[in-house]
Amino acid sequence: MKNRQWLINGNPRGRAVALSDFTHNEVDLAPLVDGAVRVRTRWLSFDPSQKGQMENIAGYAGGNTVGDVMVARGIGEVVESRSDAFAVGDLVIGNLRWQEYATLPARELGRVDDPDHATDYLGVLGSTGLTAYFGLLRVGCPEAGDTVVVSGAAGAVGSVAGQIARIAGCRVVGTAGGAEKCAWLTDELRFDAAIDYKHERIKTRLAELCPNGVDVFFDNVGGEALNDTLARINTGARVVICGGIARYEEAKPAGPANYFNIVFRQARMEGFLLNGYEREYEAARARLRTWLDQGEIRCREDIQQGFDNIPETLLRLFRGANVGKQLLALW
Amino acid sequence: MKNRQWLINGNPRGRAVALSDFTHNEVDLAPLVDGAVRVRTRWLSFDPSQKGQMENIAGYAGGNTVGDVMVARGIGEVVESRSDAFAVGDLVIGNLRWQEYATLPARELGRVDDPDHATDYLGVLGSTGLTAYFGLLRVGCPEAGDTVVVSGAAGAVGSVAGQIARIAGCRVVGTAGGAEKCAWLTDELRFDAAIDYKHERIKTRLAELCPNGVDVFFDNVGGEALNDTLARINTGARVVICGGIARYEEAKPAGPANYFNIVFRQARMEGFLLNGYEREYEAARARLRTWLDQGEIRCREDIQQGFDNIPETLLRLFRGANVGKQLLALW
Repeated sequence: MKNRQWLINGNPRGRAVALSDFTHNEVDLAPLVDGAVRVRTRWLSFDPSQKGQMENIAGYAGGNTVGDVMVARGIGEVVESRSDAFAVGDLVIGNLRWQEYATLPARELGRVDDPDHATDYLGVLGSTGLTAYFGLLRVGCPEAGDTVVVSGAAGAVGSVAGQIARIAGCRVVGTAGGAEKCAWLTDELRFDAAIDYKHERIKTRLAELCPNGVDVFFDNVGGEALNDTLARINTGARVVICGGIARYEEAKPAGPANYFNIVFRQARMEGFLLNGYEREYEAARARLRTWLDQGEIRCREDIQQGFDNIPETLLRLFRGANVGKQLLALW
Repeated sequence: MKNRQWLINGNPRGRAVALSDFTHNEVDLAPLVDGAVRVRTRWLSFDPSQKGQMENIAGYAGGNTVGDVMVARGIGEVVESRSDAFAVGDLVIGNLRWQEYATLPARELGRVDDPDHATDYLGVLGSTGLTAYFGLLRVGCPEAGDTVVVSGAAGAVGSVAGQIARIAGCRVVGTAGGAEKCAWLTDELRFDAAIDYKHERIKTRLAELCPNGVDVFFDNVGGEALNDTLARINTGARVVICGGIARYEEAKPAGPANYFNIVFRQARMEGFLLNGYEREYEAARARLRTWLDQGEIRCREDIQQGFDNIPETLLRLFRGANVGKQLLALW
């Protein structure tokens, strides 16, 4: 039987990801070895950090090299199993990569307990939600009454981070591109305010919307959003660097000229990776699930279709085409 | 009796400090009121943060406005007193400003207990040493065995921070301008290595001198030193932003393009101001005094002379002319 795949064909370090960074491939499926499971990929998850993984930065969530099948978390159905852990028909989650069939040792797969809400495991209950949870609560340390600003707030991580801040009793302002995304933030996700960076100046609007300054900044963007918010941080502020999607498009990304304000404001700017919190995933996931069930956290999925559209779907993230979690269904 | 002063004549925000930012003034001394003390200024202390004070940034160590007598800590001799706290002949420390005679309420002055080592109270036992102490130990959190890099290491704060790191069991590398300063760091202050940024590339030398990366960076400089060190930080590194003398000369200082490495390295970049630690000054000062007495901390003073040279002495800091603590003796 044939397996169709997308291989990495270029290293996008210092430039935007392009369709030509991927090349189509077809291989024969080898017979299963003992302990292995064959999975037919159903959904793939897309995340800006996949660009970082392609750049193969040591220490950052593993790495890929040219010629590898592109790394990606996904959910699929077990179609063949030589492990007692999974039976044919089970729904499983793991690094399925960009291919129709993934063949993995059973220990590298997790079970999707709730097939009716399977894609939540790639979103709010997956690394997206966990990144928002630990980044905001552990690195950002929000206190009730704080003003929290989230950049890229209509993205998968940002939208959850902002809602957790609201649950934590904070006033939440998000930045996003376009009126539709901003309306979604305020009307559906109950952010206190939204800044449309495509039509408004972040600097001016922050001054209006945060007259008492910013206590926590959860940054998914970098660039101007980071620099303008640094100018308005309060004494003791926490600046959580979660992502920097603005820099992914630039050959020589600029640093935040206002970084020195962390001295005047005795503030801290901190980066984090999710795997530092692995032992606490289950506890966090239980809370996130409760908030989902209660409607305290709402999410939206942008589900593209079809194997051929996989590379193009990654590119959507970098031009801000997605609202909420970017997924693709293979069938 | 006449009092000669230097008044602030310009706001150097976004540019270097110039001699024309100060203007000479002469006033008559008013009679002393109850509770006040008149002090004849003996030594003045110079610090890069004085430029920040001139820029009058809210919340940053008070502020000055054009027309004020330039703010500066100093030590002087009491020449007249209407307070029981001080008698004529006492040596006192406080915000004496750039003038021959300071008239202050007694409560704003401190006593210099050890007249033989009076200037230590403006250096290692003053805000210089306390800044190094709390910045390195509380914000940098060095562990024995860590590699600590200090930029501007031949400056007053940097030289003390590096020596405290050595006392804490760390490997210490300093950056400084010129062979003489570098030799002082390694030969006299017992740094493990020094990088002469005027004749060597920081990036290349850091790679050679810190093959296992950097755990703590104590930054007094900003600019290239900050950016190049961010590229070499270890997982969990602490980047202490103490000063940014490079940016003081630039109209549009650049931010550190490598800031995003704090994500890959799960690191933290933090600013601080000394006054957050006020309750602990005495305990810290006692330790610093012990280290001084034991020769564990060594210092050098650069003492300029004469009232007329006061503005020029501040400018020495920004062109790196000083080695160690910059002072001026009025008589």
